[in-house]
Order: sequence, then structure tokens, then C-alpha cells
Amino acid sequence: MGICFVAIGDEILRGETREGNGAALAEHLAGLGLRLDQLRAVGDSKPAIAATLADLRRQPGTLVVMSGGLGPTDDDFSRQAVAEALGLLLVQSETAMAQIQERFARLGRTMHPANAAQAWLPLGAKLLENLHGTAPGFLIHVRDFAVMALPGVPREFAAMLDDHLGTALQATGHVAAPRTELTYRLFGIPESEMQGALAELPRYDACAMRSLPTWPEIRLKLSSRGDAAAFAVFLEAFRARLGRFVYGQGDGDSHAAAVLRELQRCDARLAVAESCTGGLVSHLLTEVPGSSRTLALGVVAYANAAKSSVLGVPDDLLRDHGAVSEPVVCAMAAGVRARADADVAVATSGIAGPDGGTPNKPVGTLCLAIADRDQVRAETIVLRGLPRGRFKTLAAHLAFDRLLQWARGRPLP
Amino acid sequence: MGICFVAIGDEILRGETREGNGAALAEHLAGLGLRLDQLRAVGDSKPAIAATLADLRRQPGTLVVMSGGLGPTDDDFSRQAVAEALGLLLVQSETAMAQIQERFARLGRTMHPANAAQAWLPLGAKLLENLHGTAPGFLIHVRDFAVMALPGVPREFAAMLDDHLGTALQATGHVAAPRTELTYRLFGIPESEMQGALAELPRYDACAMRSLPTWPEIRLKLSSRGDAAAFAVFLEAFRARLGRFVYGQGDGDSHAAAVLRELQRCDARLAVAESCTGGLVSHLLTEVPGSSRTLALGVVAYANAAKSSVLGVPDDLLRDHGAVSEPVVCAMAAGVRARADADVAVATSGIAGPDGGTPNKPVGTLCLAIADRDQVRAETIVLRGLPRGRFKTLAAHLAFDRLLQWARGRPLP
Repeated sequence: MGICFVAIGDEILRGETREGNGAALAEHLAGLGLRLDQLRAVGDSKPAIAATLADLRRQPGTLVVMSGGLGPTDDDFSRQAVAEALGLLLVQSETAMAQIQERFARLGRTMHPANAAQAWLPLGAKLLENLHGTAPGFLIHVRDFAVMALPGVPREFAAMLDDHLGTALQATGHVAAPRTELTYRLFGIPESEMQGALAELPRYDACAMRSLPTWPEIRLKLSSRGDAAAFAVFLEAFRARLGRFVYGQGDGDSHAAAVLRELQRCDARLAVAESCTGGLVSHLLTEVPGSSRTLALGVVAYANAAKSSVLGVPDDLLRDHGAVSEPVVCAMAAGVRARADADVAVATSGIAGPDGGTPNKPVGTLCLAIADRDQVRAETIVLRGLPRGRFKTLAAHLAFDRLLQWARGRPLP
Repeated sequence: MGICFVAIGDEILRGETREGNGAALAEHLAGLGLRLDQLRAVGDSKPAIAATLADLRRQPGTLVVMSGGLGPTDDDFSRQAVAEALGLLLVQSETAMAQIQERFARLGRTMHPANAAQAWLPLGAKLLENLHGTAPGFLIHVRDFAVMALPGVPREFAAMLDDHLGTALQATGHVAAPRTELTYRLFGIPESEMQGALAELPRYDACAMRSLPTWPEIRLKLSSRGDAAAFAVFLEAFRARLGRFVYGQGDGDSHAAAVLRELQRCDARLAVAESCTGGLVSHLLTEVPGSSRTLALGVVAYANAAKSSVLGVPDDLLRDHGAVSEPVVCAMAAGVRARADADVAVATSGIAGPDGGTPNKPVGTLCLAIADRDQVRAETIVLRGLPRGRFKTLAAHLAFDRLLQWARGRPLP
């Protein structure tokens, strides 16, 4: 009883679109304790789609989730191909027609006659309403084979999975075991080291886990294998051993959002002075709605003149130690904090490369400082072998980590 | 004579990795005038891989490009599965063994005994050297069916395509027609409008084209259908009609790099004041190596206090017009330009949402200003219906566009 995914579209095979609906489905299924059996993409061709379905039908009990080919144009063949593969007639669904008309009316647009084609479904199919676009989906179940056809637009596909996948799984006898998975987001520990540390925890056997590395972070998903008490023991040990690296929970939580949350918890306003990260720290923070309440000021002081004129870094520090040095990065942090009258500030200076390295300060050298109203601390880390973009990303996340540790050490206001 | 792609890996079907090698191959083939026939992903299972190959073998003349399953561990089955599907013995290749040993020696690491498994190939296979990892690939050609097995690590896969795909295509009689494609990068015109404009150009028939939308930019690839003189006529008309929207050429060229190149051409230094883009303009500019020569200063002035204290925006402007207004964004641009003594400055202020909109200034309102040593100009654009992240991205690209137009209007120094 397998679940297969088939994406339809010439644009995928011509390299013009990166297919991502299969991955979205796979992730969705994993959350239900289910796994995709295989994944395919074929072109906008009725024979190719029908042949693929015929091949997948050989395995009894298969549910095929299709994406794409439901548009109103001449090269949208999914409806016909499914009907053909299953030996069914196509019939116009009045309900589908009404839903399409209603959607156009709601948007105040005139329905194009071609859109009527989207209301045709294989005889016996269950209509799956699309609340996010014009193409309705459908589920057709014939003996021990089922096809769920969904639109290919990623936003519509994902929303329709949420709305209808449960029905399709149930109708085809796939027993979802919705795991109560806990998603932890970690930074600062390599994946292999984390795996090693997890394996040594008590009642490791009680825990099912999967990790989704999204460099430089890890999303770790933990769930119980059934023994709730043992799982609780494991979780407590996990938090004690690896809690230092956990910055958040849930798939949507970002490192920047965790920093802002912790700063808001202790009522602290932030200023940022960036040299080597070049605005990335500020950019990631301002991706989070409401960040304006916490981020008082960001300065991208790439040039030495900007470091001295805007941040007040003394010229002799720059001359004696160079821009990538702990004294300078301390002065940057203290300077931007004072200028914004913020409670805490972080500053970065480093050599992102590809040029600019020296024997003493190779490409990858990063100086980081945290300043608050009482003190300034700096550190130097060498991040070897990273291309420019990855160096900036890792440096920004290290800045987030240090801010998080700072905020965690603060008393509540 | 089709070309099919098969990715191997449980992690793909469990939703832990987004498969991208298929898209890389599709794009590579498109550049050679060839197209992928289908794309599949199956798990780390010898029967599943062998069954897939057996199915694909039914179509005579097929070349299968596989990625993954060539590692040294117990769940790497590609070598065995290919041998089994083709009814061949696996034999240890001395050359492969020597290459693996040499690679470990070069990295100063001890070779693990398990890595010896990577030197086994189906009898008769041609070894494909991997200069970027330990897993060699291979090409096996039996009658009218061929399999090229490559490692799954995206960097290694892409490099081995460059090194070996030509051989595989030649060996299997796939005639590549390497097009001399010209890649243009455009911003500021919707794709459908661009398509319409292209279709109206003289000698449209002489041009083969494909466009790869990478929102908010378009990569447009143009090549001749054979009539070089007619293609030249088309290209000239293209440049005249759409040149305004072309900011660069080639796949690697970014909008930010084009801005820096144009500013360097007219020897101008840049300052940036960002409110709603929150550091993204600076971040994208500093992704480009050497940007420090041109970017003098960036200020992320999210808070009004920062706008007045760092950028010198008069308090009464903020009070009378609000932060999202042309007078304020003009003062921001002029202020940051003066502070950095730069030749040109750009400033952004807007309402990224999801909150903060008013009837007069809805979410999506963007004010942009460009200041130089002579004047300041501002404009207001409403970008409707974009989530926060996309609003920031589009706003940053609009800032780049205005900087580009400014630089293009400058005389050479």
C-alpha cells in the first residue's frame, strides 16, 4: 500500500522550474508517520501521464498524488490522462463549475470560457475544492488504486494537502499515525556530534527522531515510540544535555525570531554594527514582523571611514590593530549601542573573502563583540573553507547565538 | 531515445532533503538543446532501484542518469542494483581503487576499509573519475540501454555532469546541439508582458528562447534557430525594445553586482539608508566580492529616533508627514549621503506588513529616494498583496533598479 507522487509539467523537465511539491508532500507524510514510496515527474503529455499511472497501478493499493496539469489551457492533460488510465468518462461537475464561477465573481473578474474545462472530472471522482486558485482538484478511487490530482502552484498544492490529504489517506486505507512530534531548532553543534550525543542519552530507545539539516541550523524532530514515561525521561536528558544549542521550537521559528523574543522578554532594545556580515544580521532580524519594537539601529560600516565617523571607532585603534580585531569590534559595538541608546549591541568584523586574507588573519577570520550598558566582550573565531555567502550566514548566526546567550543571562525586568 | 533521471535516497522520500540534481541535469541538458524525458526518485532499496531500471529499460535507447547511492555504507545500493538490473557481475576496478586511495592520501586522511566498496563496478563499466569526492561514478552501456551513475552530493553531481555528461551522450548517440545561448537578466517587466513584447519583434521566428523566472528577476535565454543574420536583427530589436529592463548577462550575474559594476564604471561611491528593507539592500550588495570599494555606509534606521539622530531627518518632517513619506525618504537619502560623503545614496521607507497599514498608506506602500551631490528625487509605489519577505525583496530590487538608472545617466569620469 504505497503512496507515490507524480509532478506534471514540461517546465520541470526543461529545467525551468525546480519541482518542490514532492518534497512538501514527503514532509507532510513524515509528520503523519507515513513515507512516500517514489516520486516522479513527467511532461505535459497525455500518453506519458497515462503510462505512468498504468505503471504505478501494477502495485495494488497505491495512492498517487499528482500535482499540475489542471490548468485551463491546451497543454493541461491531467484530467483526461487520469480518465484514460482508469477507463472512465470525463463529465462536467456542476458543483465544480459553480465553485469556479463563484471564485471569479468574488475577485470581480470575468471568467474565461477556457476555465470551464477545469470543471470536468473523471466519472465518480470526488471534487476537492480549491480555496486558493481556480483549478479544483479531485480524488478518484477505483478498486485498489486511487489518484488525488491537485494543482501544481506550490501555494495551492500545499494548502490543498492540508485540506484534503487526510480524506484521501482515509479513503484508501492508509492509516496515518499522527505523531506528536516535537520540533526543536538547534544551532552551534554539528549534526554528527548531535547524533552522537543523542545516542548516549538515557532511554534513547524510547525516541523516534529525524533531523532536517537546514544549514547552519538543524531541525530535530522527536517523537515517542510508545512508552510515554521513557520518552519523558529521554526528553529531560535531551534538554539538560543539548538545551544550550536549542534556540526554538516549531518549524516556523527562526533564529532571528528567537533572539527578538528573548530580547523582548527582558525588555532590551538592540543595536547592530556590521562590517563583514554587511547587513545580513539586520536583514534577518527585520524579516520578523514586529522587529521594529526591538531593533533600534543597524549600521553597515564596511569602510573604515564609516567605522570612525558613524560609530566613533578611534582612528588609532584602526591603525594599530586593523579593522578585523577585537579592540575595533569592541569599539564598534560600544559605539553603535551608545549612538542608539540601546541596551545591548552586537558587532561583526571579519574577512569574508575570497581576497583580503593575511597569514595572521586568514580568510574566514571573524571578530564578534557584544556590548551592554556595563561591559563589552569580544571573541575571535576562524571559520575555514567557507565561500563568502556562507561565511556571512554563519557569522550572522553566531551573532544571534551570542545575543541569545546574553539575553538568557538577564534577569526578568 | 530518451534521457531519464533517477535520484536515489530515503532522505528524499522522507522529506528531509529537497532533490535538486534532477533540475540541475534538466538545465544542463536544455543548454545542449536536449530535454529530460522523466525524473524519478526512489529509496535506498536494491529491489526498488533495480525495478525502476528494468521499467526504464523497456524504452529502447534510454540513457538513465542516476544520482546517489554510491557511498561506502550498507545502505548504498546503486552499484549492486545496476549490476543486477543488467545481469552483470560486480568487479573491483584497480583504477578506481587507486583513485580513491590517492584522494585520501592527498587529503592526509586514512582510508576507511568500507571505502573499498566504492571501487566495485559492474563488469564492462567505464569508470568516471570524481575529482570532488571519494565516490567515483561509472557509465555502463549494454546494447541500447545505458546508465550513468553519479554521486548524490549536489556539488559533486554538478561537477561530474560538466566532466562526463558529454561522453555519456556521445556514447549513447544523443546528439547534443550545443546552442550558443545568450543569457539576459531582466528586472522590472512581468514575464507575460515580456513574452508579448518579444513576440512582436521583427524576426521573432529566428529566435529560440526560454525564460527561467527567478522572482523578482527573469533569466531569458536566447539562441539562433539557424539563420544568423535574422537572429542578429531580432537581437538588435530586442535590445532597443527591452534593453531598459536588462541589467546583466550570464547566469551568475546578480542585480546587486550590476549596480556595483555601473557605479564603479562612473567612479561613484554609494551610501544606503534603509527602513522597510531592513538591511537587505546592504546585504545583497555585500554578497558581491569587492563591494567594500563602492559601499561607503549603510544605515538601518527602522526607528524614528535613528532616522533623526543618525541620518539627520528633521523631527518635524517625521511628525508632519510620517516616516513613510517622500519628504522623509528624501531626507534619509540626503542625510546618509552627506554623512558618508558618498556620490549617491538610496533610501527606502515603507510598510512591509502584516500590520501598520492605514487607509492612506496601505500595507505595501514603498517610498524610495535617490540623492546625489546635485539633487534628491523620491517616488511612491504601492506593492499590493506581497507577504513581508517578498515586499522587502521587491523593494530592494526597485532600489537597485533606480541606482542602475542613475549610474547609466552619468557621464564616464
